[in-house]
Amino acid sequence: MKKYALIVAGGSGTRMGSPIAKQYLPIGGKPVLMHTLEKFQDADPEIELTLVLPEADFPFWKKLCEEHAFSVPHHLVPGGRSRFQSVKNGLESLKLNQGTVAIHDGVRPFVSREVILQSFREAEAKGSAIAVIPLKDSIRKLTDDGRSIFQERQYFRLVQTPQTFDLSKIKQAFKVQELGHFTDDATVFEHQGWQVHLIAGNPENIKITTPEDMEFADFLIGKKRG
Amino acid sequence: MKKYALIVAGGSGTRMGSPIAKQYLPIGGKPVLMHTLEKFQDADPEIELTLVLPEADFPFWKKLCEEHAFSVPHHLVPGGRSRFQSVKNGLESLKLNQGTVAIHDGVRPFVSREVILQSFREAEAKGSAIAVIPLKDSIRKLTDDGRSIFQERQYFRLVQTPQTFDLSKIKQAFKVQELGHFTDDATVFEHQGWQVHLIAGNPENIKITTPEDMEFADFLIGKKRG
Repeated sequence: MKKYALIVAGGSGTRMGSPIAKQYLPIGGKPVLMHTLEKFQDADPEIELTLVLPEADFPFWKKLCEEHAFSVPHHLVPGGRSRFQSVKNGLESLKLNQGTVAIHDGVRPFVSREVILQSFREAEAKGSAIAVIPLKDSIRKLTDDGRSIFQERQYFRLVQTPQTFDLSKIKQAFKVQELGHFTDDATVFEHQGWQVHLIAGNPENIKITTPEDMEFADFLIGKKRG
Repeated sequence: MKKYALIVAGGSGTRMGSPIAKQYLPIGGKPVLMHTLEKFQDADPEIELTLVLPEADFPFWKKLCEEHAFSVPHHLVPGGRSRFQSVKNGLESLKLNQGTVAIHDGVRPFVSREVILQSFREAEAKGSAIAVIPLKDSIRKLTDDGRSIFQERQYFRLVQTPQTFDLSKIKQAFKVQELGHFTDDATVFEHQGWQVHLIAGNPENIKITTPEDMEFADFLIGKKRG
């Protein structure tokens, strides 16, 4: 079955306190996004890659690709005003309806090959595959009256990406109006009344959102090369 | 008010796949536990430190202290068969009832000075202070029938240590029989019907439990020195 991946990096990265959005910052000498795209190509060269970026950044990205002689084939699609809209744009750019599509945060360059392949396999079989990891720390839930309540942590999972889906189903799911609780693609899929299927992610598949994350990412890259 | 800290390292560390328990492994050339003890002494030299260790490890620990010329004053108290029992032993070794006590995982050497001082201040004022951090990822809850449900992540907090308490209250709380849901000291305190007060922890205050954590810890130590 045809495999697609949408690498979503529509954000402007202002939270990093850097004039350059985080997805363009180098780790191990190369922008974060290039590592992410390479992970999918290395996992399976048959995966058709689409990168969702703010349209204003297209010239900058093309220049980066030239500077780094970056040769992983990918389509460019303009991002929207929200993550939902960016993913929707990416999905609408895929003209066929048959296949599976992995939706993945551009700033998660440490997804493992095994998780990528597993997510496609399970999404083909079950309609969806959401990468999650267990909690290492205890967890508490805040209540509206200012208290907090202990939770049994074994019942919780932290949600990562890739979130991989049957293509026609996820396209259908994204035809709705955007709602406030759509924090990821799984919640959009569920809004149709469909269950999502969870798979085990890899713990080092962190989302790079802070300067400390960038330092950790640099450390992880060095480790893999060392 | 008198300040105590119980550094709890009763575990045998077999999960590390190492014959040496994780709290004794070096980061930046020095055992994890020594970094943790130093953090409390550096934050406030008036804090009276008690280290809870498996009794069988006492000679090994004393040898390590000699080898590293480790001079931070601390009492040694034998650990128990569970974390609950280890903390209970530590609390019972404190003969007075007036003051505040920070209970802290031995394998969390990256607690910040600010969090330590804040936890004592707030526990003095409010009876307890539990260090927590917000979630960076989305979170789902597993249901008994094999499904999973999206959760609003802003209502959740990951629980760290220090967990700091009014000494007489936490001593009273630990007089109960150990229960299965006592996963940390906050849950023991709450079992008395008392609310816990949450404070902001520092994100890099990780619990070292895997070989990957050790590598990251080595990186963090190097960063602070560099």
